[in-house]
Amino acid sequence: MANALRLGIAGLGTVGASVVNLLAKHGDAMARKAGRAVTISAVCARDPNRDRGIDLTGLSWFTDPVEMAKSDEIDVFVELIGGDNGPAENSVRAALAAGKHVVTANKALLAKHGVELAQIAEASKVSLNYEAAVAGGIPIVKTLRESMSGNDVSRVYGILNGTCNYILTRMEAEGISFEDCLADAQRLGYAEADPTFDIEGNDTAHKLAILTSLAFGTKISADDIYMEGITSITTADIQAADELGYRIKLLGVAQRTDTGIEQRVHPTMVPKSSAIARIDGVLNAVAVDGDFVGEVVLVGPGAGGNATASSVVADIADVARGDQTPVLGMPAADLDDYTRARMRLHEGGYYIRFSVVDRPGAFAEIAKCMADGGISLESIVQRRKAVGTGVPETGAQAEPQPVILITYETTEVAVRQALDAIASKGVVSGAPQMIRIEKLS
Amino acid sequence: MANALRLGIAGLGTVGASVVNLLAKHGDAMARKAGRAVTISAVCARDPNRDRGIDLTGLSWFTDPVEMAKSDEIDVFVELIGGDNGPAENSVRAALAAGKHVVTANKALLAKHGVELAQIAEASKVSLNYEAAVAGGIPIVKTLRESMSGNDVSRVYGILNGTCNYILTRMEAEGISFEDCLADAQRLGYAEADPTFDIEGNDTAHKLAILTSLAFGTKISADDIYMEGITSITTADIQAADELGYRIKLLGVAQRTDTGIEQRVHPTMVPKSSAIARIDGVLNAVAVDGDFVGEVVLVGPGAGGNATASSVVADIADVARGDQTPVLGMPAADLDDYTRARMRLHEGGYYIRFSVVDRPGAFAEIAKCMADGGISLESIVQRRKAVGTGVPETGAQAEPQPVILITYETTEVAVRQALDAIASKGVVSGAPQMIRIEKLS
Repeated sequence: MANALRLGIAGLGTVGASVVNLLAKHGDAMARKAGRAVTISAVCARDPNRDRGIDLTGLSWFTDPVEMAKSDEIDVFVELIGGDNGPAENSVRAALAAGKHVVTANKALLAKHGVELAQIAEASKVSLNYEAAVAGGIPIVKTLRESMSGNDVSRVYGILNGTCNYILTRMEAEGISFEDCLADAQRLGYAEADPTFDIEGNDTAHKLAILTSLAFGTKISADDIYMEGITSITTADIQAADELGYRIKLLGVAQRTDTGIEQRVHPTMVPKSSAIARIDGVLNAVAVDGDFVGEVVLVGPGAGGNATASSVVADIADVARGDQTPVLGMPAADLDDYTRARMRLHEGGYYIRFSVVDRPGAFAEIAKCMADGGISLESIVQRRKAVGTGVPETGAQAEPQPVILITYETTEVAVRQALDAIASKGVVSGAPQMIRIEKLS
Repeated sequence: MANALRLGIAGLGTVGASVVNLLAKHGDAMARKAGRAVTISAVCARDPNRDRGIDLTGLSWFTDPVEMAKSDEIDVFVELIGGDNGPAENSVRAALAAGKHVVTANKALLAKHGVELAQIAEASKVSLNYEAAVAGGIPIVKTLRESMSGNDVSRVYGILNGTCNYILTRMEAEGISFEDCLADAQRLGYAEADPTFDIEGNDTAHKLAILTSLAFGTKISADDIYMEGITSITTADIQAADELGYRIKLLGVAQRTDTGIEQRVHPTMVPKSSAIARIDGVLNAVAVDGDFVGEVVLVGPGAGGNATASSVVADIADVARGDQTPVLGMPAADLDDYTRARMRLHEGGYYIRFSVVDRPGAFAEIAKCMADGGISLESIVQRRKAVGTGVPETGAQAEPQPVILITYETTEVAVRQALDAIASKGVVSGAPQMIRIEKLS
C-alpha cells in the first residue's frame, strides 16, 4: 500500500467535526477501498481549546489556515471555513499553489473564483474537488463531471436550498404564512438568524452557477443569474397553485436557449405530477436533461454535517485513488465564455395574481391588455371574496377581488409589458404577483 | 495529448449502434474533457453487411469477439453482446487476461462471474467498468463505488426493471389486467416476446446482486436472492393498495439484518408518500441508505439504447482519464463472504388478501389463526361483493368474499404458519395473496 494520504482540515465546525468522525469510524474501510490509508495530520481552527466532541489527539494544530495550506505535513487541504474571500480564499490559493490537492465544501468561493482556482490547480497538477459545495450529500458534481460527460446537456435545474423548501413545504401543508414558517424554521435550526442569503435565493444562485459551468462547459458567471427569492409567496399563491395542479418550489434553472444560457433562480410553479414537485422539507433534488441519457434526477439531503461530510470524504477518496478530473469538467482554457440569455427573452407559462378593483369592465380591461400583448390564457380563476357576513359584496365600494390567470407559453417581455399596461389602467390594486411555470415531464 | 484510446466494440445491436452514434456526435467534446482522444478501432458482429444506420467506414471488422479482445488494435474491449456465458464471457475473460480494459453493459455476466472477473482485472491492472449493467442511464454504480464509499450502507433498493414498472403503472392507471398490459407492452416493444426473465424478477435479481456487493462489500451471490415476479398481481390488489395508501412496485431490496444480508425481489407495497411510489412507467429508481449521507435516490431511464450508451461512454471516459476504481469497490480479496439472511426471518408488515368462504364464523377463524401466530392487524377490509342484481348475497351458498388484512410488523415465518393454519380450517377458497410492505421514509 502507498504512503498514507495526509489531510489538513481547516475549519472544525459542524461539517469539520463530521469529517473527523467519519474518518474515525470508516477510515479503515476507506483505505481498503482506495488502496491507500487516509489520515488526518493537521487541523486548523481559531480556538484549540474548545470542546468539539471529537478526538484530535496527536494532530498538529494551526490557527492560520494559510500556514497549514503550505505545510509539508499535508497532502490534501480540506477547506471547511466558508466565505468567498479572506482566510478561505487565501488558504485555498496557497494550498493549490503549493501543490496540495484541495477538497472544499465552499460554494461561494467556487461561484466567485472557480475558473481561476481551476487554472491554478491545473498548473499545479492537483485536484480541486467540491462535491459538497452543491446539494450537500447528493453526488451531482460527479454525475455531471463524469457520469454525464458523454451528453450534451440542455437544462439542469433543482431544489438547491433546504431552508426555502422547508418553508414552502410547511406553508403548503399547514396553510401558515411565510413569516410564521420562517420564524419556526429559525427556532428549529433550519434557517439562520439572518436568513437573507437563503430566502432571497443567493445560496441557490451560487450552487446554480457551478452547475451551469459543469453542465454547459462555460465559465462560471454567478453575477449573471436572474434572482427572485420566496419572500413574496403567500398562502393564497400556494392554495391557487394547488387548485391549478401545481406546487411552488424555489428552483435554480440553467437552460440553453437560442440566444445563450439562461440562469435563473425564482419561485416556480411545477406540475404536481413532476418528480421535483414531490421533494419535500429540507431535501434537495437536481435534475439534468442530457441528449443521450434523457432526464436523470438525484434526490437527497442537501445540508447537514454528516451528509456534507459524506461528500467531502468521497472527494478525498478520489484523491487517494489517484483519480483526477478537470475541475470544471474540462481544462479551464477550453471553457466557453458564458453568453447570457436575457431574462426578458425567457419563454414559458406564467401564473399571475391580481387584486382587481371591483367595478364593471375591470376584468375586460385586463383581458384586453393580455390579448394586445399576444398572450393567450389557459386558465382564469376568479372567486369573489366573502366579506363580513359571508355574503359576497357587490357594487363600486367593495374591496378588490383576486383574479388568477395562467398563461400559455409567452415571453417575459410580453408579460411585463402587459402588466405595465394593466397597471396604467387603474384596474388593479397593488403590484400583481407573477410566478413562472416550468415545463417539466 | 496522450495517444488516442482505441475501442473495440463487440455487439452492434441497439446499444452498440447508440455508442457509435454518441462517439460520432460528442467524441471531440469527450476528448477535451478526458484530455485524450477516444476512437473506435474495431467492431465485432456476426454480419458485416447488415445496414445498422451507422458509419463504420475504415474500422477493422471481427466476427469472433475473442479474437478482437486479444487484438493489438484495441485498448478497451466494449462488450455489448449479452449473456452470462459463450461469446460474452469468453471474450471478456480474454480481454482482461490480455490486459485490455473492459466496459460492459452485461448484468447477467457480472451477476454470475463478477468476483472472478474482478480478480482477473486486478491481476492485469485494468479497469472493468459496468455502469450500464445496472439501471441503464442512472449512475448508481459510480455512486456506490465512489460517491458513497465513506458510508456504511444499511439498505439499497429500487425499481430496476422498466417492463414490470410499466405494466404495474398501467394496471393501476387504467384498471386493466396483467395479461392485457403485458400484451400491450409487447406490442409497444416494452416487453420481450418471451417476457419471463423480466416479469418473474430474474432481471431485477441480476442487478440487485451487483448492487448488494457494491453496497455491502460482499461477494456477489445472485443465487441467494429470494424472488417473486409480478404475474400474480391483480387489479383487485392494486385497487386495495390504493385505498390503503400504498402502491405496488416490483422492488429489489438488499438489507443488512442481524443474521446476514437479505436479498429479495418481490412485488412490494410502498407508501404513496414515498419517493419510490412515484416512479412511473419505464423509469428506474435506486435508493441507498448510508449512515452518514442518509438516503440518496437516483431516478432515470433504466433501459434504451441511448441512455445505456451514455453510461457505457462514461465508463470509457473514466478509462481515458486514467481513473481506476476497484471493480467491486474494493479489492476482490477483501470482499466479505456473503451470509444470507433467511427469508423466513424477514421482518415487515404484510398485505394479505383472502377469498373467505361465506359462512358464520369464517372470519373469526382467520382472526384467531393470526392472533395465535402473534400477528397484530393494522387494518381489516371486508367488502361484500355485489352479485347479479347488485344486492349483496348472504347465506351458505354465496360465493367467497374478499377480505384484506394489513399486519403490523411481524416475521415471514409467522405469516406463513398462520396462512397454513387458516388453509387447514377450510375457511378460505384458493391460495391467499400475500404482498410484503416495505418501510420507507
